[in-house]
Amino acid sequence: MLSAEVEIPIRFSEVDSLRIVWHGHYIQYFEDAREAFGAKYNFRYLEVYGKGYVMPIVKISCEYKRPLKYGDTAIVKADYIPTEAAKVIFKYEIRSKASQELLATGESMQVFLDSDMNLMLTVPEYIQQWKKQHGL
Amino acid sequence: MLSAEVEIPIRFSEVDSLRIVWHGHYIQYFEDAREAFGAKYNFRYLEVYGKGYVMPIVKISCEYKRPLKYGDTAIVKADYIPTEAAKVIFKYEIRSKASQELLATGESMQVFLDSDMNLMLTVPEYIQQWKKQHGL
Amino acid sequence: MLSAEVEIPIRFSEVDSLRIVWHGHYIQYFEDAREAFGAKYNFRYLEVYGKGYVMPIVKISCEYKRPLKYGDTAIVKADYIPTEAAKVIFKYEIRSKASQELLATGESMQVFLDSDMNLMLTVPEYIQQWKKQHGL
Amino acid sequence: MLSAEVEIPIRFSEVDSLRIVWHGHYIQYFEDAREAFGAKYNFRYLEVYGKGYVMPIVKISCEYKRPLKYGDTAIVKADYIPTEAAKVIFKYEIRSKASQELLATGESMQVFLDSDMNLMLTVPEYIQQWKKQHGL
Repeated sequence: MLSAEVEIPIRFSEVDSLRIVWHGHYIQYFEDAREAFGAKYNFRYLEVYGKGYVMPIVKISCEYKRPLKYGDTAIVKADYIPTEAAKVIFKYEIRSKASQELLATGESMQVFLDSDMNLMLTVPEYIQQWKKQHGL
Repeated sequence: MLSAEVEIPIRFSEVDSLRIVWHGHYIQYFEDAREAFGAKYNFRYLEVYGKGYVMPIVKISCEYKRPLKYGDTAIVKADYIPTEAAKVIFKYEIRSKASQELLATGESMQVFLDSDMNLMLTVPEYIQQWKKQHGL
Repeated sequence: MLSAEVEIPIRFSEVDSLRIVWHGHYIQYFEDAREAFGAKYNFRYLEVYGKGYVMPIVKISCEYKRPLKYGDTAIVKADYIPTEAAKVIFKYEIRSKASQELLATGESMQVFLDSDMNLMLTVPEYIQQWKKQHGL
Repeated sequence: MLSAEVEIPIRFSEVDSLRIVWHGHYIQYFEDAREAFGAKYNFRYLEVYGKGYVMPIVKISCEYKRPLKYGDTAIVKADYIPTEAAKVIFKYEIRSKASQELLATGESMQVFLDSDMNLMLTVPEYIQQWKKQHGL
């Protein structure tokens, strides 16, 4: 399983008046984990973009189990979920660095658009090669 | 069906380097529609909070169909989905004000916590009354 | 004096754990007032951009006098400060809609870059005309 | 001189449609450097808050010299500027990690409020001690 992790110290400005992280910020944390994945496995937005593709998010979800507070550090893990389809799927887990407790889970789906912003129904050649290189 | 709408002119700062709204901002737009709902039907965060409850989001999802761009105005609609459970469920639709095209859909689920932050397994009295007042 | 105003209902997510608007959001509110100014006086980012210029912010400041809270509505006013220099200067005032009290003031300075991102030392022709049209 | 630094990899969502970091985010970067300062010198928001004070920002400014782009890493330095007044003043420098070029400078001023949110005209005892411990 290809997987990457990132540590996120919770910022003062991310915490709402109930003193917990506002739920919308988790979507950013998922992106941070995707970027860590991109850096680790050579799958960065800019590289893919340089090849003439974009990979917009078409679906995202998050389940919140326990709150994050100011002063906490979150560990956000992104697992690449292999698929034959012309899609990129990640599952996410957010844990407390201190307690290792599972705080949230999530999932995202991306598709490929070509340089004219048309949906690609088959996996782009560049991504095919990347998958082969990583045993997928 | 109880339902509320809000108009959101897209901000320059919400648009990413592909010149479309960054996907994470849609979660804020859903909240804007929930706040419009709260204002319309007397179901505001602060009032509920004043009654001793909080209603954290426990689940959120969004499906992105077509992009929003800088200069667009989005119409975000929140539909209250009645349920017997001790939950608050909304479904969302985001449309282009100009074309009325459907751009995104979503769903959120909230639960009730009491003042000690314990999950309430039954619908709070105050919410029961609110539902009755609105024919739910 | 050319001037534009915008009403901003404070969002739940903009309020921090002290239950007041996080100070960084005021910079967004200033931009909202600049966008209202652009819409009112035909001075929009996209139009200027379409003429081959960009107008990046090179300096911004804010003085905070009294807090904004969740549930408040802010009135943000942007005053265009005329100058002979190749700059665009705005001064801002944020007031409470309810009490009309002055809550914050600020100032921004923008310069002109040409399509090669070089600083323009003279006011672009298009902006000269815009100024004349508005008696500046 | 008491001083702290933090490294900030630029996020995709922080970059605007001109492919540079939106100017408002710099205010967050300054706060990140203040938090690094707080962690290094035992001057954290939460500790100060636990002593019965808050230290709201009353003034902030930023000068932008060169843009930050997606993929860049910023080094943000906060220098504590000693003062006899009942204020906390920081100066900031943002540099490119790659080129060490100076990209932006800034300054912030905070005051002390007591637990009733009244402005304190003298430096709180707890802060006096902290200053002595750090040779200020």
